[in-house]
Amino acid sequence: MTEFWHVPEIKYVGNHDLKSGFGFHYYNPDEVIGGKKMRDWLRFAVAYWHTFDQRLVDPFGDGTAQRPYDKYTDPMDNALAKVDAAFEFYQKLGVDFLCFHDRDLAPEGNTLRETNKNLDKIVDKIVAYQKTTGMKVLWNTANMFTNPRFVEGAGTAPYADIFAYSAAQLKHSLEIGKRVGSENYVFWGGREGYESLWNTDLKREQDHAAKLFHMAKDYANEIGFDAQMLLEPKPKEPTTHQYDFDAATTIAFMKEYGLDKDFKLNLEGNHANLAGHTYQHEIRVARTAGLLGSLDANQGDKLIGWDIDEYPSNLYETTAAMYEVVQNGSIGPRGGLNFDSKPRRSSFAPEDLFYGHIVGMDSFAAGLRVALRMKEDHYLDDIVEKRYSSFDSGLGADIESGKATMQSLEDYSLDKPQSHWIDATHSDHLEQIKDTINHYIVDTLGK
Amino acid sequence: MTEFWHVPEIKYVGNHDLKSGFGFHYYNPDEVIGGKKMRDWLRFAVAYWHTFDQRLVDPFGDGTAQRPYDKYTDPMDNALAKVDAAFEFYQKLGVDFLCFHDRDLAPEGNTLRETNKNLDKIVDKIVAYQKTTGMKVLWNTANMFTNPRFVEGAGTAPYADIFAYSAAQLKHSLEIGKRVGSENYVFWGGREGYESLWNTDLKREQDHAAKLFHMAKDYANEIGFDAQMLLEPKPKEPTTHQYDFDAATTIAFMKEYGLDKDFKLNLEGNHANLAGHTYQHEIRVARTAGLLGSLDANQGDKLIGWDIDEYPSNLYETTAAMYEVVQNGSIGPRGGLNFDSKPRRSSFAPEDLFYGHIVGMDSFAAGLRVALRMKEDHYLDDIVEKRYSSFDSGLGADIESGKATMQSLEDYSLDKPQSHWIDATHSDHLEQIKDTINHYIVDTLGK
Amino acid sequence: MTEFWHVPEIKYVGNHDLKSGFGFHYYNPDEVIGGKKMRDWLRFAVAYWHTFDQRLVDPFGDGTAQRPYDKYTDPMDNALAKVDAAFEFYQKLGVDFLCFHDRDLAPEGNTLRETNKNLDKIVDKIVAYQKTTGMKVLWNTANMFTNPRFVEGAGTAPYADIFAYSAAQLKHSLEIGKRVGSENYVFWGGREGYESLWNTDLKREQDHAAKLFHMAKDYANEIGFDAQMLLEPKPKEPTTHQYDFDAATTIAFMKEYGLDKDFKLNLEGNHANLAGHTYQHEIRVARTAGLLGSLDANQGDKLIGWDIDEYPSNLYETTAAMYEVVQNGSIGPRGGLNFDSKPRRSSFAPEDLFYGHIVGMDSFAAGLRVALRMKEDHYLDDIVEKRYSSFDSGLGADIESGKATMQSLEDYSLDKPQSHWIDATHSDHLEQIKDTINHYIVDTLGK
Amino acid sequence: MTEFWHVPEIKYVGNHDLKSGFGFHYYNPDEVIGGKKMRDWLRFAVAYWHTFDQRLVDPFGDGTAQRPYDKYTDPMDNALAKVDAAFEFYQKLGVDFLCFHDRDLAPEGNTLRETNKNLDKIVDKIVAYQKTTGMKVLWNTANMFTNPRFVEGAGTAPYADIFAYSAAQLKHSLEIGKRVGSENYVFWGGREGYESLWNTDLKREQDHAAKLFHMAKDYANEIGFDAQMLLEPKPKEPTTHQYDFDAATTIAFMKEYGLDKDFKLNLEGNHANLAGHTYQHEIRVARTAGLLGSLDANQGDKLIGWDIDEYPSNLYETTAAMYEVVQNGSIGPRGGLNFDSKPRRSSFAPEDLFYGHIVGMDSFAAGLRVALRMKEDHYLDDIVEKRYSSFDSGLGADIESGKATMQSLEDYSLDKPQSHWIDATHSDHLEQIKDTINHYIVDTLGK
Repeated sequence: MTEFWHVPEIKYVGNHDLKSGFGFHYYNPDEVIGGKKMRDWLRFAVAYWHTFDQRLVDPFGDGTAQRPYDKYTDPMDNALAKVDAAFEFYQKLGVDFLCFHDRDLAPEGNTLRETNKNLDKIVDKIVAYQKTTGMKVLWNTANMFTNPRFVEGAGTAPYADIFAYSAAQLKHSLEIGKRVGSENYVFWGGREGYESLWNTDLKREQDHAAKLFHMAKDYANEIGFDAQMLLEPKPKEPTTHQYDFDAATTIAFMKEYGLDKDFKLNLEGNHANLAGHTYQHEIRVARTAGLLGSLDANQGDKLIGWDIDEYPSNLYETTAAMYEVVQNGSIGPRGGLNFDSKPRRSSFAPEDLFYGHIVGMDSFAAGLRVALRMKEDHYLDDIVEKRYSSFDSGLGADIESGKATMQSLEDYSLDKPQSHWIDATHSDHLEQIKDTINHYIVDTLGK
Repeated sequence: MTEFWHVPEIKYVGNHDLKSGFGFHYYNPDEVIGGKKMRDWLRFAVAYWHTFDQRLVDPFGDGTAQRPYDKYTDPMDNALAKVDAAFEFYQKLGVDFLCFHDRDLAPEGNTLRETNKNLDKIVDKIVAYQKTTGMKVLWNTANMFTNPRFVEGAGTAPYADIFAYSAAQLKHSLEIGKRVGSENYVFWGGREGYESLWNTDLKREQDHAAKLFHMAKDYANEIGFDAQMLLEPKPKEPTTHQYDFDAATTIAFMKEYGLDKDFKLNLEGNHANLAGHTYQHEIRVARTAGLLGSLDANQGDKLIGWDIDEYPSNLYETTAAMYEVVQNGSIGPRGGLNFDSKPRRSSFAPEDLFYGHIVGMDSFAAGLRVALRMKEDHYLDDIVEKRYSSFDSGLGADIESGKATMQSLEDYSLDKPQSHWIDATHSDHLEQIKDTINHYIVDTLGK
Repeated sequence: MTEFWHVPEIKYVGNHDLKSGFGFHYYNPDEVIGGKKMRDWLRFAVAYWHTFDQRLVDPFGDGTAQRPYDKYTDPMDNALAKVDAAFEFYQKLGVDFLCFHDRDLAPEGNTLRETNKNLDKIVDKIVAYQKTTGMKVLWNTANMFTNPRFVEGAGTAPYADIFAYSAAQLKHSLEIGKRVGSENYVFWGGREGYESLWNTDLKREQDHAAKLFHMAKDYANEIGFDAQMLLEPKPKEPTTHQYDFDAATTIAFMKEYGLDKDFKLNLEGNHANLAGHTYQHEIRVARTAGLLGSLDANQGDKLIGWDIDEYPSNLYETTAAMYEVVQNGSIGPRGGLNFDSKPRRSSFAPEDLFYGHIVGMDSFAAGLRVALRMKEDHYLDDIVEKRYSSFDSGLGADIESGKATMQSLEDYSLDKPQSHWIDATHSDHLEQIKDTINHYIVDTLGK
Repeated sequence: MTEFWHVPEIKYVGNHDLKSGFGFHYYNPDEVIGGKKMRDWLRFAVAYWHTFDQRLVDPFGDGTAQRPYDKYTDPMDNALAKVDAAFEFYQKLGVDFLCFHDRDLAPEGNTLRETNKNLDKIVDKIVAYQKTTGMKVLWNTANMFTNPRFVEGAGTAPYADIFAYSAAQLKHSLEIGKRVGSENYVFWGGREGYESLWNTDLKREQDHAAKLFHMAKDYANEIGFDAQMLLEPKPKEPTTHQYDFDAATTIAFMKEYGLDKDFKLNLEGNHANLAGHTYQHEIRVARTAGLLGSLDANQGDKLIGWDIDEYPSNLYETTAAMYEVVQNGSIGPRGGLNFDSKPRRSSFAPEDLFYGHIVGMDSFAAGLRVALRMKEDHYLDDIVEKRYSSFDSGLGADIESGKATMQSLEDYSLDKPQSHWIDATHSDHLEQIKDTINHYIVDTLGK
């Protein structure tokens, strides 16, 4: 393997050095905590698009990224060299999973047949690498948003031809998922939404989207591709409104169209923020519904109104996310943490891809450590159990069991004075909880 | 009737005067347009809380509103005088409906029994007025958010006692709904959400909320109160996160708990904006799901992050809302437009309540006129029909009918060149649509 | 002139047709209103970058725009053909002004010398067209944000070399401004801000920016280029924080560095919204400071957190902007309205560039008509004069003149009862004002 | 002193217990770090309004707070009892400073004379306590926003009488500042802004505001009250737009009206967020201008669009704020950290006031410790110095000194190839910086 990244293998080094370098402070992949190896709790994946394809373009600037394979100007040469770079990167970083869109891997041809041929050639090389390295695919997906043909949507395009093309592209993408053994298959509907309601038949578009999802699942079954199917919510960008706005909206859609048996959710931190939610909220909503599938790891800047896909570094957010995972027992039977993250445009050196993944992996590993410690101490569980304990017996149990009626509750309530009801409530001491969480973070990680 | 508002009856005066006065420019209640009287399309209601109870307090300021009944210092005298003022206001404004919370009408006593007694006395007076005036109640509801006992929720409070109290209060509120003949019964869960996820059992709270809704519906059935039940989404404020975040989230909740057969949605413009949506979007989502119940009329300022409940004046927003209503045939069989709106704090004179309702009613009447004209011209219908026409026959019809398969669609797509797919898409000319809508507004109203 | 746009000359057609076509409903360039021709009030300019260079790319999609000159694959051939297309467009649209960045016109070479040579060749062609058509340049500017060399800023880059390059590029851009007779020269600092405060010397960067502005002004004087210099505020995007955040921030900067004598402001609607302001607010702040220079015409979607540069169509916003202009007497002695606007990505046909400019020009022309009518009626002037009239004589005049002291005001105030102060305030009747503005819009335009 | 808070004195206990209790983990007031006692770095103050007056009302709910002095129903008895409670609180918490508005202390009478008399009586008691306890006043201020007379502003009210009243109220407030020995005097203009631009004479209002500030400073000089004068920015709420929008806007105003010699800024975290900024940004802007006066300590929730005034707990934000303070040498010669923070509405127990201040004080003490360690290591200073080092000599020094000209820079730049400029830029490695800051926080506090 040609060492063009000038970077050594990233190992667990613990807490000796304050300055971030090429080592993990908190992520120790084979350390068993909470009954599992850290690598099995976290199941980190590297995203092909942001890591190898993203040249750090923004709406006002050309790409700044310096990537070794860009010495190849022929697109297929470039694509083949990228695979080498990618597998060197995975191995040095010590991750077990990758994720990709079809279009990340290989350029389009003039027809779908040619496009598929380009793609198959790259997949051959990936499959070969998988055999020698053991790398697994957390999920693959079809990019049905970049090409101008998808200008008004893919599955929700107002044109039958575009639906047809989308189905055909998707078919091959599912076949590739089977070849590479993807554990999940993700649908992010970048263009599946509307620019204006004035010219949009929302119902018909959603019918079409659901039809495409059903066709995909049926075809996957047909070819024996047993990946977990996932929908990924995002509220807007590129469209003014995207149909899979957030977890709750997507769950409503899944239930409406009978998709909730076969599909789960892939949730992302920055998307949560754009929808006005925390990442923790989205994960809670999904796991409460039994629909948590997998996680995209990144962070937004809540003062910024677009998707910045920053590497996760905020320990409050990673702790909150991992607490939900710990409560859930796992991310989900086949889920993982995929870094849908990219360096800042001014972090254009190749090694910044390592620094970015290091801060991301260490931040989630740190979050896992803190969350497990709070769980082991039953710290928050105690608070929650006590808070709702009046429903565990007596009046509350009668309410939950359905034994209480409006009449019985009126009888109970009618003559009690105002002071009774005030005494029935208790301070939540939320400031104390926030302080204690600070202590958990600092104490767990600082020692 | 003592004329303490110094205001005449508000009549339709048409377009002679540029300056707003005590007359309607666009709302002509008995004019038949689109096959119905304007009053029957719009079914305007006055909100008791904002119109008669709101003293124009804000988080940094005491009330500024000058209200005639505030000369009465005894709360029950004040409450009785308010009823007189209210019915004088309704009659002068020429509306057919009112809306109220239980706590708007009468003060609380030390026990629920005393509270109910106060309330019943005021309701007696309202019922008497209804007989002489024909005024109807669009909806009533229970205020289960102002009193400190609801600090952590009502139906979702973590305390069985508070659930009990809420059910008891709700029971009497339903009984009052029956007495006044409410066409709808609304649930806005101001405190039904969370301040922090760390101490919240989201699942258990939602179970409790659903239980309360089911109990309410069952009890309404039991007493023969056949109002349409409505849930009102709002994303946040007062809580950090409210469970009925927006239309889609509330629909997900309704489906999860089997409430979608008996409940519909009451939607509000300012709440839509706080959730990151347009009012039109929320109405479209609800009507697409067959769950549009009724509308709260107000407008937000999208640069302001809290609920300002401004009287509607933006003709783009009222046109868009009424276009959805026109497409739906009506707001809903029992729905109406309730002005959940209040004057600015510096509009503290009694007559500002009239000016506010005039701009609100005229703006929705204007929106109705414009929407109906676009509908009669089939202007947008033509655009939408043409846009999706490729699904009406051939390939598209095969897709919709399920005849097409992934294999057939791949066969269709595999060898067509890139240019085919680009030619399959067509410009949406959205700029032309926006321009034409300007012409519809100006031309319909300016003549 | 080769007619490749398939579009006729756009003429004033008045109000006969509801549907938007290739004609103006409100913009009648040579009609005299408010003492000036409409064309002289509005001084419309077409932006080269959005109109001819923008291919409707977004962060998730490739360009969709269909542009006739894209048949030329050699960059210089393409650039030359674009000039022909541009001048055909200007002539058909009937505008008097264009605006451009240096990089809009011609591709970069490997050195600045080559880049300048490419540019000069295109400018030669523009100058030739100017002679035959009379087209004027409202402003030109230097693109110092797209190329990777500007990744960390141009004038505020932390690297002396990049400052040097920026000055050199700017020098030639000023020389071109002189050649084409630009009335203004604009500085938009797309990269002049910070991604992170941790590595930023904010003071040193602002010193450098000011130095570059002073050098530019001095050099313009040296070569006899007497354009009005303008700074254009935008709060963020592409940077996390841009130094010229909004009008007030930019004024603070100008005063700090002694730039307020030689520079004024170029203000944009969408930028105002991103900063949490209305367009009207930004214009008011600038004209109050005597620093209103010119206007960029576009509109944002306040529910969308990034710069969408939509063609203006909202008559409330154009009326408010033009009311400020009317109060100011003009946009500014050399200012104009430049359409920094682009079609939606799904409006990809060449004629959408016309539809977009038509809705934009008509919306501002409409705003001008409404604003002038309110001004002629002295409608808002009366409200404002009356509102502050207590400062025109007596106590208020003593306060303004400085005759009143804290002691005299205490003497005046100490013993007056609470009721006196309440009676001293008067309702603003803001709801009535909003209603009346609706009437002005509808009545002025609908007849 | 009657012990009605059931809370012991809060002492430094260090890191033994994970759960937050009545002790400080990081704040050790007399420990010397960075050359000063922690208490002198931080100069914590308790805000009278949020701590003793705030009953945890919100726009949809009545007060929930349980406060011991509320057993007194006579307003003056209540006010006197509050002083006892306050001084017991200060002593137990171990702070050295308090802050207050005039209206926090005592109720209004029917005339200003009566109001002043009420106030003086309470101030007498405070002064007496100061003598026995040594408590100092960080700042006092006048509440000119709650009473309905200020509905349209105080200094910017459109009514001369209201300006007169404001000046008179302010006069007495300055006299009280002198009596209690306030180190600063703060102006937060809650109503000094506009609800609508349509009826606002922005220039005249700002002239009036400046006049009031000048009168206040002159009067303070006249009576020998030598407090530092401070303006406090906030962008909006309660008004739609507040004139002192953010630090930069307020600096522009100060410079325009010649106030920058006598006034500085008081900055708040939640206000920064509402303006679209970080707290660190606001502090940086102020200290760069030499105008950092004092700090209000609280935190917002960036997903919430209004002022929530949460106790600070986010260690990233306190570290960033304290890093600016460390770079500045101090908060400012007379500045301090005032907790403009309140418990959540569900934290209604008296002891929550302690928990809130504990998390707030500990979070800022933690931030100070981390910031000082980064400073001692010269960690960020090295990054910044290296980043701008090309301006320290050669070409960059010529640019800064003014020796370089546009001609010399063009000569330097004209023939260098594209690669030269790319090589002149260097990756910022921002991901590495974020990771390292995590290590500093965890390591400094966790040991």
